Amino acid sequence: MNDLKSKFLEVYSALKSELLHDPAFEFTDVSRQWVERMLDYNVPGGKLNRGLSVIDSYQLLKDGKELTDEEIFLASALGWCIEWLQAYFLVLDDIMDNSQTRRGQPCWYRLPKIGMIAVNDGIVLRNHIPRILKKHFRGKPYYVDLLDLFNEVEFQTACGQMIDLITTLEGEKDLSKYSIPLHHRIVQYKTAYYSFYLPVACALLMAGENLENHIDVKNVLIEMGTYFQVQDDYLDCFGHPDVIGKIGTDIEDYKCSWLVVKAMELSNEEQKKLLHENYGKEDPTSVAKVKELYNTLNLQGVFEEYESKSYEKLISSIEAHPSKAVQAVLKSFLAKIYKRQK
Amino acid sequence: MNDLKSKFLEVYSALKSELLHDPAFEFTDVSRQWVERMLDYNVPGGKLNRGLSVIDSYQLLKDGKELTDEEIFLASALGWCIEWLQAYFLVLDDIMDNSQTRRGQPCWYRLPKIGMIAVNDGIVLRNHIPRILKKHFRGKPYYVDLLDLFNEVEFQTACGQMIDLITTLEGEKDLSKYSIPLHHRIVQYKTAYYSFYLPVACALLMAGENLENHIDVKNVLIEMGTYFQVQDDYLDCFGHPDVIGKIGTDIEDYKCSWLVVKAMELSNEEQKKLLHENYGKEDPTSVAKVKELYNTLNLQGVFEEYESKSYEKLISSIEAHPSKAVQAVLKSFLAKIYKRQK
Ligand SMILES: [Mg+2]
Ligand SMILES: [Mg+2]
Ligand SMILES: [Mg+2]
Ligand SMILES: [Mg+2]
Ligand SMILES: [Mg+2]
Ligand SMILES: [Mg+2]
Repeated sequence: MNDLKSKFLEVYSALKSELLHDPAFEFTDVSRQWVERMLDYNVPGGKLNRGLSVIDSYQLLKDGKELTDEEIFLASALGWCIEWLQAYFLVLDDIMDNSQTRRGQPCWYRLPKIGMIAVNDGIVLRNHIPRILKKHFRGKPYYVDLLDLFNEVEFQTACGQMIDLITTLEGEKDLSKYSIPLHHRIVQYKTAYYSFYLPVACALLMAGENLENHIDVKNVLIEMGTYFQVQDDYLDCFGHPDVIGKIGTDIEDYKCSWLVVKAMELSNEEQKKLLHENYGKEDPTSVAKVKELYNTLNLQGVFEEYESKSYEKLISSIEAHPSKAVQAVLKSFLAKIYKRQK
Repeated sequence: MNDLKSKFLEVYSALKSELLHDPAFEFTDVSRQWVERMLDYNVPGGKLNRGLSVIDSYQLLKDGKELTDEEIFLASALGWCIEWLQAYFLVLDDIMDNSQTRRGQPCWYRLPKIGMIAVNDGIVLRNHIPRILKKHFRGKPYYVDLLDLFNEVEFQTACGQMIDLITTLEGEKDLSKYSIPLHHRIVQYKTAYYSFYLPVACALLMAGENLENHIDVKNVLIEMGTYFQVQDDYLDCFGHPDVIGKIGTDIEDYKCSWLVVKAMELSNEEQKKLLHENYGKEDPTSVAKVKELYNTLNLQGVFEEYESKSYEKLISSIEAHPSKAVQAVLKSFLAKIYKRQK
């Protein structure tokens, strides 16, 4: 493990310990153990890309000047706030999607004695974020902007989840409602704001920037997030379960995935009929028929073309930016996800 | 309907319309309709005591001086934020408690095509609060204090819910773990902060007060909230379903209710055995046996004594307060709940 990641994980332990002794609540022993187990199970087990990006980005915005210990701690704390936010969304998303596994282990709500208590655990995760922010940023000039930022991004993510969920209901009635503009709107809101814009926005605030002056940065990051979610849709079907840490169920779940939207675009009438009849069915034969059609339509090739086109477009948007430091931040982000396998 | 309440309901319509056209999200037609229906079903249908209390309290803090239209609007908006918070907690609480009815209608998640989407709907409700605060309070000197207040109170409520849920799991193993101090801790956190302290704290902030100077007010309100939740536990068993708007299931659900704690305190060995054998069972015979024991132990009488003692204690705490305006706020609150039937 590299030095940055091990420092980042040390900050996790420090924040956890503060939260387990938060004076705003009188823990019972049992509830303190509950929260600790819940945090360890749900917060640090992912790739930590979002969280680590805050430190990376801040470092680059500082033009490579060495960061003080305090700066590293604060950037890490903001990074962990994003990881907490992610954990909160995933715990609840798995309940709503009736999922089995996450990050190579059973979903939290599937564990014995947890069940629907996981809903409140998700809420507790969410509520830890303002506790961390208040403890470490209350005196900073950008404190109120941080609160506004986290609030706005959470709102957008919740709205994205909403259209994802409602669209799935609608799609069950009529698959032809799935389209690229609708897919784009869902993924922009449910993924891109919190996964791509939020880490960079945190770094910008720490660096003393006003976010209103960085709308172009936001737009590039939203496009990057869209590309990331298309990868996610692709990996759900074509990725290896051992690598991505879960068994994809987008076909069974009638998801408005980029793959089904593309398949509908490229299908003739007969192939559309096959989709209508087999998409969203639990049985493995139906799922296999859909996957076979995806192969017939060469969706792997279509995806690869999308991938390289997106990459070129993003690079040229990034190179149009006046600040070399900001360019470096955006390129570093893109490098992390281009051609990812998980 | 009185004038204040009808003005308050007008503000609901104004806030709802703003939220349905929030520029931070691009609604689809279907999602805008979804949110509108979800708000109308879950937000305005309660007693609205918490929300109206903000206006009442602010009025009293202003020594009865007539409020401007803007003051009435802002106090109402804060009142509605509390009602939104309550709606959020109730939508999720009903899922976790597997409840059937709420406010005389089926719980939101029980409606066709809703199901677990209700989890995200709860999250959307929660996210509306900072949208309302940002739109109407961003320029106020107490904006950051409002955000901190809502964040802290939500955190405390989520922690209260957590110990409520975990305690119920523990209680299933061992009823003797239920005690008055544990009960007090649960209700203080899960009910009192948001239902009693929050409305008055909102009014104090609007009146330009620093909340750190009002710890005594907070303590009285927390005691009042505890008394309120004891009433809630009492009404769950002894209230009339048509009046309280739901069928109580605390006995079936193994809840750490004030009634079962008192029953354990007052029972001889044989009666304790009856409780151990019948508390937390779904079948009507077991429930009836528990209720019969409650009658044998005269819990109605024990409750009435608790009620009048609490009242006296609260009145003398209130009268010890140096400010007549604050006394009026607290007495007005107490008057609304003393001997309530619903
Ligand atoms: Mg999911
Ligand atoms: Mg989902
Ligand atoms: Mg996916
Ligand atoms: Mg309940
Ligand atoms: Mg409950
Ligand atoms: Mg109750």
